[in-house]
Amino acid sequence: MSAAGTAPVPTPAGSSHAGNRRFVLARRVDGLPRTDDFRLETAPRPLPGEGQVLVRNRFISVDPGTRGRLGDRETYAQPLALGEVIQAATVGTVETSANPRFKPGDWVAGAFGWQEWGLSDGRGLRVVPSNGLPPSTAIGVLGIPGLTAYFGLLDVGALKAGETLLVTSAAGAVGSAAGQIGRIEGARVVGVAGGPAKCDWLTRDLGFAAAIDYRAQSDLGAALAAACPEGIDVLFDNVGNAMIDAVLPLMKRGGRIVVCGQMADYNRPAHEAVGLKNTRAFIGQRLTMRGLVAFDYVRQYPTAWERMTQWITEGRLAYREDIIDGFESLPQAFIGLFTGENFGRRVVRLA
Amino acid sequence: MSAAGTAPVPTPAGSSHAGNRRFVLARRVDGLPRTDDFRLETAPRPLPGEGQVLVRNRFISVDPGTRGRLGDRETYAQPLALGEVIQAATVGTVETSANPRFKPGDWVAGAFGWQEWGLSDGRGLRVVPSNGLPPSTAIGVLGIPGLTAYFGLLDVGALKAGETLLVTSAAGAVGSAAGQIGRIEGARVVGVAGGPAKCDWLTRDLGFAAAIDYRAQSDLGAALAAACPEGIDVLFDNVGNAMIDAVLPLMKRGGRIVVCGQMADYNRPAHEAVGLKNTRAFIGQRLTMRGLVAFDYVRQYPTAWERMTQWITEGRLAYREDIIDGFESLPQAFIGLFTGENFGRRVVRLA
Repeated sequence: MSAAGTAPVPTPAGSSHAGNRRFVLARRVDGLPRTDDFRLETAPRPLPGEGQVLVRNRFISVDPGTRGRLGDRETYAQPLALGEVIQAATVGTVETSANPRFKPGDWVAGAFGWQEWGLSDGRGLRVVPSNGLPPSTAIGVLGIPGLTAYFGLLDVGALKAGETLLVTSAAGAVGSAAGQIGRIEGARVVGVAGGPAKCDWLTRDLGFAAAIDYRAQSDLGAALAAACPEGIDVLFDNVGNAMIDAVLPLMKRGGRIVVCGQMADYNRPAHEAVGLKNTRAFIGQRLTMRGLVAFDYVRQYPTAWERMTQWITEGRLAYREDIIDGFESLPQAFIGLFTGENFGRRVVRLA
Repeated sequence: MSAAGTAPVPTPAGSSHAGNRRFVLARRVDGLPRTDDFRLETAPRPLPGEGQVLVRNRFISVDPGTRGRLGDRETYAQPLALGEVIQAATVGTVETSANPRFKPGDWVAGAFGWQEWGLSDGRGLRVVPSNGLPPSTAIGVLGIPGLTAYFGLLDVGALKAGETLLVTSAAGAVGSAAGQIGRIEGARVVGVAGGPAKCDWLTRDLGFAAAIDYRAQSDLGAALAAACPEGIDVLFDNVGNAMIDAVLPLMKRGGRIVVCGQMADYNRPAHEAVGLKNTRAFIGQRLTMRGLVAFDYVRQYPTAWERMTQWITEGRLAYREDIIDGFESLPQAFIGLFTGENFGRRVVRLA
């Protein structure tokens, strides 16, 4: 965990032993993020006070949804200020603790962002249960991605057995969980993903009935119609408006559209925004479209964790992690999400 | 009820006494409807058989939603075939009846379309109750427009007391009912309408807290924000995508968008379709957008009729009708809906 050696820009003083490397927002992001939108700094390692826990981060997530807070467009959430640490979910080990809920060596999940160390009074921090799974799953299939899939599909999507579920970005962390939960619940599941390797994984390993490689399609609407000849009851979308628009004409009466992510729209400048045009179907087919944030379900997390852990243990719910080594890889690992280079939940592992 | 005299094109033979004038679709409508999209014909007056009821139509509705079935775009509903009678709600009197549920002279509401006479076996036909209101209200405030407002607002919109409701096309048949029902239910109601006369009616007579004349606004978003300083809980929209897009940034967390009509979009060719772009709010604000068709609530109509009739009788729910005289006025009365020339529920009264 040497500090300044890999920093692309000069950083404040601080020895490698006492330092806390962190990436902050260097400028407002416009379009696709670039590495120099982020600045590597070394701050002093935080000193725990009364009741506090010091955590050494071991895995840090990179999430497409973070993009929404880096630009300057008006958005629901407060945009991240310049100079602030990039937000992210983290898993680490307790270094020192003055809080009775945590003891040194515990694996804990939190949201310390893109930095090597985290300090907490215990709020927002939880001990990763001993479930036999790698600790990184606490910010993957059992973290916000998995929880988003679970509540998005079962609550917002209200999926029922026998229905047809279409999942987009289906080989991603959220999509692959949503599709498998749909299969477990008795739906016929079709996925959209980029490239033959991801599509093969969906159909061979995850039990998707069909997978569409959108990169190989000149007419996505026709491919969707062929894969869903009876129409679509639930669309679980991680992509954005162009995708939803392509699916709208195939939605069945009473269909639900779960707006989970807008990967393809996050990087577009406002004047290039793609709009939903096929909205006529909303009245004709009595469609419901609803967005979600998993955090709204925080009181129901334990139920979801219990069920999903069991499914994983039984071999019914598979997950795939795309682990990138090295703290300094964070910006590039994040940027790669938007070109689809990741295959599975991408996390950065610290040395 | 003379027949061929006013027909713009030659019609089949048929005496004025035995004839049934009707407007049929002459060609697929492209863009704003034109009078020559419709053809006036005279068919023989239908002859009632066993169990059938012959109805002389007295009022015929013109509805923006009809536009959706006149074009050639793929749509949820089967497009109307060329040569078919234009569909519409009707109120009339029973001329002869071989059905025990109806007797000559009864006022009945049905859906006979743009023609002078209707024949029915009784299905889809109901006797207009003696509620002291003009029979035309059976296809207005107590017909599909009022029922759409009622169920759209209370079921789809799930409006609660104390919330802020925005209604667009608020001086129309559906909008004015929705806004007043919202007021009765304890919401703060803001309307969008075209022109000062309609806006005055909303605030002076219907109890809207504010009304925005969209024609007088150079920045509709700013006007909406000023009228709804705390944001909007429920948008009841009759206009379409551009309007919803302007409102999306003002929606409060957990807000609901009722997609009731798409007046501004019906006449646009597909390649000029306006899209919803501000969809980022769906996730951030956990918005729900849902379309409705009143017919889905047919089993609950009696409750709605009872409540709305009481509100009208108590003077709490006002309505306004825009009655155009003369069967042959139907096409022009319909076309005028799209330029906003009507003020209130437009129906055509037959001589």
